[in-house]
Amino acid sequence: MRGGRTIERLQDEVRRFADARAWGEFHTPKNLAMALAVEAAELMEHFQWLTPGESAALPASRKREVAQEIADVLIYLVRLSDVLGIDPLSAAFAKLSVNARKYPVARARGSAVKYSRRGRGRHPL
Amino acid sequence: MRGGRTIERLQDEVRRFADARAWGEFHTPKNLAMALAVEAAELMEHFQWLTPGESAALPASRKREVAQEIADVLIYLVRLSDVLGIDPLSAAFAKLSVNARKYPVARARGSAVKYSRRGRGRHPL
Amino acid sequence: MRGGRTIERLQDEVRRFADARAWGEFHTPKNLAMALAVEAAELMEHFQWLTPGESAALPASRKREVAQEIADVLIYLVRLSDVLGIDPLSAAFAKLSVNARKYPVARARGSAVKYSRRGRGRHPL
Amino acid sequence: MRGGRTIERLQDEVRRFADARAWGEFHTPKNLAMALAVEAAELMEHFQWLTPGESAALPASRKREVAQEIADVLIYLVRLSDVLGIDPLSAAFAKLSVNARKYPVARARGSAVKYSRRGRGRHPL
Repeated sequence: MRGGRTIERLQDEVRRFADARAWGEFHTPKNLAMALAVEAAELMEHFQWLTPGESAALPASRKREVAQEIADVLIYLVRLSDVLGIDPLSAAFAKLSVNARKYPVARARGSAVKYSRRGRGRHPL
Repeated sequence: MRGGRTIERLQDEVRRFADARAWGEFHTPKNLAMALAVEAAELMEHFQWLTPGESAALPASRKREVAQEIADVLIYLVRLSDVLGIDPLSAAFAKLSVNARKYPVARARGSAVKYSRRGRGRHPL
Repeated sequence: MRGGRTIERLQDEVRRFADARAWGEFHTPKNLAMALAVEAAELMEHFQWLTPGESAALPASRKREVAQEIADVLIYLVRLSDVLGIDPLSAAFAKLSVNARKYPVARARGSAVKYSRRGRGRHPL
Repeated sequence: MRGGRTIERLQDEVRRFADARAWGEFHTPKNLAMALAVEAAELMEHFQWLTPGESAALPASRKREVAQEIADVLIYLVRLSDVLGIDPLSAAFAKLSVNARKYPVARARGSAVKYSRRGRGRHPL
């Protein structure tokens, strides 16, 4: 039954997990942001030598490994959010609204975003 | 009313957002994993020159910026999960169970993990 | 005249640059490793929405921006190496020898490396 | 004898290494930028749970592992530069000159840079 699985409950379980092991001292926002970036790189590593097409057709065994990296990223993200007192879902919904204004459907449709802040080819979303 | 805010609803809204702009062609797992890693680095960048203590006492204006980066990471994480057909919450709860077995409270309590795969000082969680 | 441009001279100039500004306190290996990862992500960001083919045919203006990101990565890499007392060139030549034994031409030729430590599709080099 | 070890020679050897294995098809700038970011994260991972002080006093065994990660970053950086036709040392010396104008000693001395592009606490260098 999936209903019981919420990001808030994950955040609570991760907090209890860390508290039980007295890891609070290691879980500064600085360290957790590093750990999150490391896990995001491990997730990306699965795709680095694949063609875009291959990346969209992973064998089941590889997909299971990718799922574990996605799990690590989410776990560190909710832990960092918890330590900072930030609600990640509220922040994400608010950001989506900002993006919706920033990239009106009419202008963005079907086209890669050419302009960007910092001159980089940044895609909205 | 926060109740309506779930990771599944965020995933649906992000999908609609991308579909409305016909960005599907850009959203290969390979590209989304890159975008996720880039956003994780932008989040980390806020902490790179801070002491651990400073990172735990952000001024309100900086915290608002950090919240937006957390939002970007979560948005790309749910989008990548959606494209791959992976349930990020199920994966995270499963990973927590694995970690609980891997790092029994008695052994892990209060101590940084010394051993690690790849010889790196990897912290569980 | 390019002859005078060596990685050792770059390392000396970066050290003088940091010393003149009394930035030594900020340049712990931990902080420099974070800064290096952030710059590597900024470099990667230029390629995140491009096809592999587009990434190999950058317009001149984009290539100039990429060159600046490559510069940032190299500057932080030589600074981190300097602070740690590691010779990056010696380390790189030593690593190439290790890789040459690890990936004999006969076996590696023309094929993406399938096996990997950590189950990820890791390419040698 | 260290004299023979230059970044140009490293670039030549890496090119021969990749050519001998016919890895050119994998070495698009997009893929190499990903691999570089992954290696930068592996380097950073060594420091993620250390205090700034611990990161400056690595045991010899850990320092050897860090040296290998520095090697991987440099190898991918010179390979990416080679594929793009960018001279990394020239780019780095040019960037240092830009930074010297941007952060005059008088203003930057002893103080962390407060302002930043993108509102992040960005350190010059």
